[in-house]
Amino acid sequence: MSGNDIIPFRRVAIIGVGLIGGSIGLALKTRRLAQQVIGMTSREKTARLALEMGAVDEIAASIPEAVRGADLIILGTPVETILKHLDAVSTAIDRSDHLEFPIITDVGSAKQKIVAKGDACLPGMFVGGHPMAGSEESGVVAANVALFLGATWVFTQTAQTNPESLDRMIGFAQALGARTLVCDPIEHDRAVAALSHLPHLSAFALTQVADEMVAAGHEIIQAGSFRDTTRIALSSPALWSEILIQNAEEVLCSLDRMGRFIDELREAISLRDEARLQQAISKARQAKERFSRD
Amino acid sequence: MSGNDIIPFRRVAIIGVGLIGGSIGLALKTRRLAQQVIGMTSREKTARLALEMGAVDEIAASIPEAVRGADLIILGTPVETILKHLDAVSTAIDRSDHLEFPIITDVGSAKQKIVAKGDACLPGMFVGGHPMAGSEESGVVAANVALFLGATWVFTQTAQTNPESLDRMIGFAQALGARTLVCDPIEHDRAVAALSHLPHLSAFALTQVADEMVAAGHEIIQAGSFRDTTRIALSSPALWSEILIQNAEEVLCSLDRMGRFIDELREAISLRDEARLQQAISKARQAKERFSRD
Repeated sequence: MSGNDIIPFRRVAIIGVGLIGGSIGLALKTRRLAQQVIGMTSREKTARLALEMGAVDEIAASIPEAVRGADLIILGTPVETILKHLDAVSTAIDRSDHLEFPIITDVGSAKQKIVAKGDACLPGMFVGGHPMAGSEESGVVAANVALFLGATWVFTQTAQTNPESLDRMIGFAQALGARTLVCDPIEHDRAVAALSHLPHLSAFALTQVADEMVAAGHEIIQAGSFRDTTRIALSSPALWSEILIQNAEEVLCSLDRMGRFIDELREAISLRDEARLQQAISKARQAKERFSRD
Repeated sequence: MSGNDIIPFRRVAIIGVGLIGGSIGLALKTRRLAQQVIGMTSREKTARLALEMGAVDEIAASIPEAVRGADLIILGTPVETILKHLDAVSTAIDRSDHLEFPIITDVGSAKQKIVAKGDACLPGMFVGGHPMAGSEESGVVAANVALFLGATWVFTQTAQTNPESLDRMIGFAQALGARTLVCDPIEHDRAVAALSHLPHLSAFALTQVADEMVAAGHEIIQAGSFRDTTRIALSSPALWSEILIQNAEEVLCSLDRMGRFIDELREAISLRDEARLQQAISKARQAKERFSRD
């Protein structure tokens, strides 16, 4: 389905109006993909900002109020809260109010637990999603209509996923400018553990090494390499501690993988074995060249 | 000394006309900071390119020919070759040819060994240098006159360093647009081990993890965090294996430091201890915020 022939939603409820939720609201309204966008946030400042920015038409005071009559419900909070909200949404959906069941999706960076719960408590209605468009910025104040342009938006598919709802979400994400990818939750979590969660852990550790050097009174010379590799150390600690723990198994597995490569590099350096070190670096470079072409 | 009142050099010999050497040549000629720039390279293609780009006026066939009559000699090759060239330059300088001794500097990313040797075989003439303006690109083809604008150019100072030569090199680097920093070679090597060499090792390992995932047939989803943290995995394997081995002691020490922080993050994840994980990430974020202000 191309982004052009998407059927607009009647009433979209966005539970959690932060960087992602707020940007979805802005994009929906700018592109006229929803007749009405309802935001739900417990923070007064966020509510005011979201209304002022035009990211939402209305702020609901509760989840039942937000989801009433919605044909699309987007769970936009950090991952632990998404798990809680799945229960709340399930309870809140007054099925008699709905001509048809709504689609419920989320934006969480770890998918196994959320999708398992979504499938269980919202059978046939839940489509797990992960727009990979976060940044080290956060909050609705950083929201922008162009956030998803060219970004990858992953949707999960399980035996319980309604194919029509999945198609509709793919069209929705593409209409917002994203490229879409469908995969199962385990495969998603394994991939993001290695390609996103591990780079974050590395950035946190690199920054702490530099901080320790400063604390010990050493001279600090910031190279471009340090700036680039630690940019994401500015990411939200609350958000990331939840993500890393929710995806703990895959993250620990990725850390083990990285540890083996670090050990190999360390041994070559320790032995002053230039040929072996050069070979390991060449392997990395060739891989990076392939990734850069993708 | 400001960049404006620098005394131009008469004849500058650049031994090794790659990204850095070529960019120095271009900048010297564009800014009229040298009457004549002589390049020395054993590669015919590099020689032709350097002449065509105007990075050098002439190509010398040998080190003795390149350094004859030079008042500034810049060693611009990879670090192991710099060590060899220090001997060759020392032998080649026909002191009777020189009204005054030339200044010899280098551009190596590790300083202890190079400076120790430079001080020993070119007493009073050597000033170690490290323009921190490399990139994952390499070769004279990537050279550009603006490479040093805003970059940090470190010079080393030891008991053997001639203060006037050091001042002249500071003026030189500033005239090329760089900010300068003077420190001792050990302090330099410790700082770059943590702030540049370690980020490279981390990028190599992160890329290898992703490559291993691809090889195992897993889905790969490239996030912005992966792109940023592994950009420098495109760096030259030959150049970097030399740098990492020449700075092996400090690099191994930095790897140990990083290992301790990774272990701390791993343990918090493993125990699903969100408070502890959040605290570690917060510490990293606060440090990164301080670094971002520098």
